Amino acid sequence: MSSMRIMINRAAASRVSSSVMRLTEPVERAVLLSQNTSSNLRTMASKAVTMENINPNILKLEYAVRGPLVIRAAEIEKELQKGAKKPFKKVIKANIGDAHAMGQVPITFIRQVLACVSFPELIDKSDFPKDVKQRAREILGACGGQSVGSYSASHGIELIRRHVAEYIAARDGHPARWQDVCLSSGASTAIKNCLQLLCNDIGGKKSGVMIPIPQYPLYSASLAEYGLQQVGYYLDESSNWGLSIEELERSLKEAQKTYNVRALVVINPGNPTGQVLTRANIEAIIKFAHKHGLFLFADEVYQDNVYAKGSQFFSFKKVLRELGPEVESLELASFMSVSKGYMGECGLRGGWMELVNMQPDVQQHLFKCISAMLCPTVLGQAVVDCVAKPPAKGEPSYELWLKEKTAVLGSLGERAHMIAEAFNGMQGFKCNVVQGAMYAFPQIALSQRAVGAARAAALAPDAYYASRLLEDTGICVVPGSGFGQAPGTYHFRTTILPQPALLEEMLAIFKDFHEKFTREHS
Amino acid sequence: MSSMRIMINRAAASRVSSSVMRLTEPVERAVLLSQNTSSNLRTMASKAVTMENINPNILKLEYAVRGPLVIRAAEIEKELQKGAKKPFKKVIKANIGDAHAMGQVPITFIRQVLACVSFPELIDKSDFPKDVKQRAREILGACGGQSVGSYSASHGIELIRRHVAEYIAARDGHPARWQDVCLSSGASTAIKNCLQLLCNDIGGKKSGVMIPIPQYPLYSASLAEYGLQQVGYYLDESSNWGLSIEELERSLKEAQKTYNVRALVVINPGNPTGQVLTRANIEAIIKFAHKHGLFLFADEVYQDNVYAKGSQFFSFKKVLRELGPEVESLELASFMSVSKGYMGECGLRGGWMELVNMQPDVQQHLFKCISAMLCPTVLGQAVVDCVAKPPAKGEPSYELWLKEKTAVLGSLGERAHMIAEAFNGMQGFKCNVVQGAMYAFPQIALSQRAVGAARAAALAPDAYYASRLLEDTGICVVPGSGFGQAPGTYHFRTTILPQPALLEEMLAIFKDFHEKFTREHS
Repeated sequence: MSSMRIMINRAAASRVSSSVMRLTEPVERAVLLSQNTSSNLRTMASKAVTMENINPNILKLEYAVRGPLVIRAAEIEKELQKGAKKPFKKVIKANIGDAHAMGQVPITFIRQVLACVSFPELIDKSDFPKDVKQRAREILGACGGQSVGSYSASHGIELIRRHVAEYIAARDGHPARWQDVCLSSGASTAIKNCLQLLCNDIGGKKSGVMIPIPQYPLYSASLAEYGLQQVGYYLDESSNWGLSIEELERSLKEAQKTYNVRALVVINPGNPTGQVLTRANIEAIIKFAHKHGLFLFADEVYQDNVYAKGSQFFSFKKVLRELGPEVESLELASFMSVSKGYMGECGLRGGWMELVNMQPDVQQHLFKCISAMLCPTVLGQAVVDCVAKPPAKGEPSYELWLKEKTAVLGSLGERAHMIAEAFNGMQGFKCNVVQGAMYAFPQIALSQRAVGAARAAALAPDAYYASRLLEDTGICVVPGSGFGQAPGTYHFRTTILPQPALLEEMLAIFKDFHEKFTREHS
Repeated sequence: MSSMRIMINRAAASRVSSSVMRLTEPVERAVLLSQNTSSNLRTMASKAVTMENINPNILKLEYAVRGPLVIRAAEIEKELQKGAKKPFKKVIKANIGDAHAMGQVPITFIRQVLACVSFPELIDKSDFPKDVKQRAREILGACGGQSVGSYSASHGIELIRRHVAEYIAARDGHPARWQDVCLSSGASTAIKNCLQLLCNDIGGKKSGVMIPIPQYPLYSASLAEYGLQQVGYYLDESSNWGLSIEELERSLKEAQKTYNVRALVVINPGNPTGQVLTRANIEAIIKFAHKHGLFLFADEVYQDNVYAKGSQFFSFKKVLRELGPEVESLELASFMSVSKGYMGECGLRGGWMELVNMQPDVQQHLFKCISAMLCPTVLGQAVVDCVAKPPAKGEPSYELWLKEKTAVLGSLGERAHMIAEAFNGMQGFKCNVVQGAMYAFPQIALSQRAVGAARAAALAPDAYYASRLLEDTGICVVPGSGFGQAPGTYHFRTTILPQPALLEEMLAIFKDFHEKFTREHS
């Protein structure tokens, strides 16, 4: 990936995408071809898979969080390593919610359990705490042949599904059925598995899925991949990215003229927008989804990441249960991940979904479909177990676990505050309060001249801004166009994950850059 | 899963599938419904996702390796735990290539490295060998923030991709480009990612993919899921599951009348059939694929599992490189997994593919598509690293590693021999030599009476046999109809993975059962 180069084709203005900065294929093709040694010459004639006959949905798919700008950032890092002279010494990757990469320290309990289940001799021979050893024994006892190297059931180890159900029940104050919990390799897989159920052009009408704008681009990417119709509804930036039912109704009504709208995606706390929905808002959304017979995707992977005073996380499941019989049959899937929260174990790929009110035979077919992929990583499942059932008060690991968890979440809260404040101090910036999640999504005013310069560079205006930011300062953020935004507005997403000192440094560099950029384009 | 019950609907003969034993939905629905507590009553009216509007491809998808018989086996295990009286005391799971679950011991080097990268304090504090610690340091050095909890690049950690390329180069005696190596969470994900490229009904013709019959059902399941056309070619049981070019030509010619056949899947060593292709055969297959412009899927996950005298593994890549300029442009993807071989680390989900001659912009779109799924599990990648670059001669872990590897492969070879011999000693059985992989796929003669009994039970004849085997003895195998077989022939797949004593016991029980079954149905 790092070997691909973003070549900005200044003549190709007509090919600028309205949504995402694109690579210019002809140039790249040449770059990639030049990497082929002569002994390995790729003849272009009569290829079985070509740009002409490839799955067209794959061509459409875009995922900005790992898009061209991020590829370029990796390349810049390599250039720096090789001694290239740049106006900066390091790349600051604020493009992706990758906590450990930005210096967050793993939770000791989780990692000790992982070490023990990986190499069980440690259970007897190490000086790890008793509860670590006990947990490792329990997990191994639930594995075939007492080894994490065995396949688990496709929807996960029963013991861990039970722990997740207990976790949900304690969180919500309402029972959860372990049979409705399905473990996964991160939330993305589970979300895709559920989206895929909807592919069915009934009566020649494409199935549509409502997603917020701005959205997390896994959704737009997966909808493109599956040939599902993206039906955007705008979040209201002026009310801290609030979700208005009128806007949901407007979006649905318009889409229903052409599409068979079947599902609604809500991300709470919001990605990239950082808002935390109020309980009243969640109630109204549930009623809306129920009224229109929509399947509700509740992307709740940031449920532990709530920072703002007065903000609180309510799960859709809890609110559904408390809304009473009128809406109780709503079909709902809630998604959770070990990549976020206080653990930030992105690389370990653990997650789960809870299916609520899914029709039993549909659920059975979903599980059957999952089974062909064998199972989610068992070590990822072990992490899920530690998250769903952390050390309890009185157990040897409890104090350290609590201290580590509190420190991470406390520091994230401070950084959430710091970043919004800093952006709001910059001319032409408007940044909402980061109530939760791991991102700020400020709006930037771009002058006509900046927009013109972007056009000349064949880039969306915000992609131009972000590209200049990267090339001039080494700071990597993701242009708002990768998430969607109201027409004529420009944003970017930055994580709040750089450690405090680095974040302070980043914000100072950012301020200088922005002033320079503004002068240059005024 | 274990809570679902297989209800054999004896009246529903008309619904018997010709290929796979099916669950009878109405009965199951009732069973699942009855599990709902009244507080959680699922109203069946106006559901967003129903059997009527679900993705029809998901309904078609079947994966026999984890199909109804396996669900039933898990249920029987639970019944036994609860003290149910059965004619046997344990379930023997010979349905899936899950080595550790059947008692195979993990490779120490792999597990020590995993423990160290999970909990890096062990690098300093443990008495693990130096090369283990060194390897852990290298892997951590290639991780963001020195943590396996960071996302890696979507196609894997560069260091590990380089090690895989070196491994391939050493294996084949021909260079491999690390940029063409893509790490994955097991081979299945990589195979599906490549299959998905082919979805494009050009000129209204469905894309077709040639797969062997019998095949590993990941292929039939994925083709169904993606709406691709399965184009079967028969392996020749009478020549030890040989692959005849005449049969490939026949199959292709027939399919081309209706479909746009774009790819050929070859599994070598064979699953479920256990054959190892000769070099001459591989050459002929490459020429066939090249002649017809097919993309070649080389499923080579059993490349370390070759047992029979005179059999040797040749990679398609090696043979392609040595066949010369006429065919050198063939597009090829080769798949490998850490779940098989001598390591058998199924639960850790590590694998890779090497892309050969894929058109660069197609490859770029494939990598883009993968990027939306973030990354394969980093701990799975760490296992890949240990497999691609095992301890070298002279390093502290080398002797133990070699001893463990040799012991596993030696024992598998003995069991491969033992199982074929035992089956060939049973009346009505014909079992080819298990040259490689982890399975035997014997043919069984079933009497008219047995076929009639199966029909009465609404089951395919081989599913009836396997179901009776399970209920009477606790042995779980997979009916041949789940893999495909020549019409009028009946088979089952069993793994060779039970440890020697258990395998001997299993074969003895099997023999008794078969004699009883034969008497009963003669």
